[in-house]
Amino acid sequence: MRVVCLAGGVGGAKLADGLQQIVAPGELTVIVNTGDDLERHSLTVCPDHDTVLYTLAGIADPGQGWGIAGETYEVAAQLARLGEETWFRLGDRDIATHLFRTERLRAGARPTEVALELAGRLGVRTRILPMTDATVRTRVRTDAGWLDFQDYFVRLHQEPEVREVRFAGVDAAAVTPEVREAFRAAEVIVVAPSNPIVSVGPILAVPGLLAEIAAARARGVPAVGVSGIVGGKALRGPADRMLAALGDEPSALGVARRYAAVGLLDVFVIDRADEALAGAIRALGLEVVVTDTIMTDGASRAALAHEMVAAAATRAARATTGVRP
Amino acid sequence: MRVVCLAGGVGGAKLADGLQQIVAPGELTVIVNTGDDLERHSLTVCPDHDTVLYTLAGIADPGQGWGIAGETYEVAAQLARLGEETWFRLGDRDIATHLFRTERLRAGARPTEVALELAGRLGVRTRILPMTDATVRTRVRTDAGWLDFQDYFVRLHQEPEVREVRFAGVDAAAVTPEVREAFRAAEVIVVAPSNPIVSVGPILAVPGLLAEIAAARARGVPAVGVSGIVGGKALRGPADRMLAALGDEPSALGVARRYAAVGLLDVFVIDRADEALAGAIRALGLEVVVTDTIMTDGASRAALAHEMVAAAATRAARATTGVRP
Repeated sequence: MRVVCLAGGVGGAKLADGLQQIVAPGELTVIVNTGDDLERHSLTVCPDHDTVLYTLAGIADPGQGWGIAGETYEVAAQLARLGEETWFRLGDRDIATHLFRTERLRAGARPTEVALELAGRLGVRTRILPMTDATVRTRVRTDAGWLDFQDYFVRLHQEPEVREVRFAGVDAAAVTPEVREAFRAAEVIVVAPSNPIVSVGPILAVPGLLAEIAAARARGVPAVGVSGIVGGKALRGPADRMLAALGDEPSALGVARRYAAVGLLDVFVIDRADEALAGAIRALGLEVVVTDTIMTDGASRAALAHEMVAAAATRAARATTGVRP
Repeated sequence: MRVVCLAGGVGGAKLADGLQQIVAPGELTVIVNTGDDLERHSLTVCPDHDTVLYTLAGIADPGQGWGIAGETYEVAAQLARLGEETWFRLGDRDIATHLFRTERLRAGARPTEVALELAGRLGVRTRILPMTDATVRTRVRTDAGWLDFQDYFVRLHQEPEVREVRFAGVDAAAVTPEVREAFRAAEVIVVAPSNPIVSVGPILAVPGLLAEIAAARARGVPAVGVSGIVGGKALRGPADRMLAALGDEPSALGVARRYAAVGLLDVFVIDRADEALAGAIRALGLEVVVTDTIMTDGASRAALAHEMVAAAATRAARATTGVRP
């Protein structure tokens, strides 16, 4: 079963790990957000990509969900002694990834090539693909003005309200051959419980990417998503506050509306806590599956992944036989 | 007493430390070899510069003479896990220096500006200046072919014999305003006991630099050097073997001949172990001072620095009064 998953950082990584557990080796492709990439201390840092990479390689820090287990911070401490700002504190092992990446990029490799190399070096058989090879940078307008995403996210701890979001550079971005090939071979498309605005949003903003998804769905490939907002609260990060500040409902329904507006999904998975929203979401034209969505360990990751793929398969089977629910 | 010192790595750093101990704060300028700089893992690494910097900042590893005291190697270990070559193993604290440098260079700063900033960040009042802002790379022809310097020096442990040395890029290099200003303000010029071929050699090869020294000497500024070869053996590194392989005598006399050939020095300091060579060196037109030259601790560094500056001052006084020895 060839699965393509759209993912941001921690939530995306957890679901990708669940999918990797249940899909045959090499049959999973994860397309990651690169809008929150940044340059720090001359290095190209790709936070969402690396969170997915480390998680799928089995070396992620289990406590914080990002970074590498057993990480140390000697480089950052010395940078601080040199008087450098260290609000985006890079771990030593993490820096090795950035050194590898930056060297390869400066030598002319495409970001996609570097991502495939990094996965290969760490023994990961899942294909982890940047959403594009172009440089796209998420910027947010807040009451403190326009900010680079990590400036808002890390330095300012997501404190200012977000009034507007832009993906700088996205107009000039394109779908890569690897992403196109993944969609064309896909049997199921899965959207992770990542922030719909600043994690999944940049991926969908790449010109031509939604059209690939639409073409796959037109061929009968089911697309299934899951809400990262449960009981009106984001499982992680500021998605709930962002939705509210942008005039959307901060709930699974608000997420579903965003995805329905661009025709992304066939099936939407919500948590049992949100069962009351199922009717409103069905009214958007989506099938709804109600289940346990909170991934607290490896087993619950695999369980949610299984639930999503099974729901998609059921939907596809129904579509083929012409039976509607 | 404004002193300008030409220096390579460990030996140069030791003498620079001795000079810094005896010269008033801010009156010492060290011009460092950049021919052994290299790019590793996307970072610009300047081994000789950093050895001098760390030594003068009081943070050098006292055991090995280079690197930072208490250094760790977490980044290098992870790079090895990624399958990267790590024969040039960078320490974590050292990497912070390279990140700072590389970021500033990519932002358009000149190497000299970055060097002055780094010294400022580490509280060093001595001016440590790259010999040039141009990219110069020492290459050596060995029986294994032409090699980058660190390839020969670190990866191959200086095992192949050196048949020829080139400083790639030096023809397009120029003396910087800061180096020129230092020579024009100098009251004493000191040449450290560094490798005359691949440490001092690149500095002297910068077009216009020897002319600055000649102009200073013509104004009565004394230039004093010291042999890094004692009893026919280099105190550190392959200078003795290099001299022999290139057809020179591997001794203090061989070093003196190299410097006399380009009119660099007035006074040459040799170790008591080499007293028998004094006559032959005087025959080259150099004054000779015989003393203890081996720097084993801070006090012996200061003692050699004092001896060299005093010999230069004596020479300058004699030149002024017209008294010849």
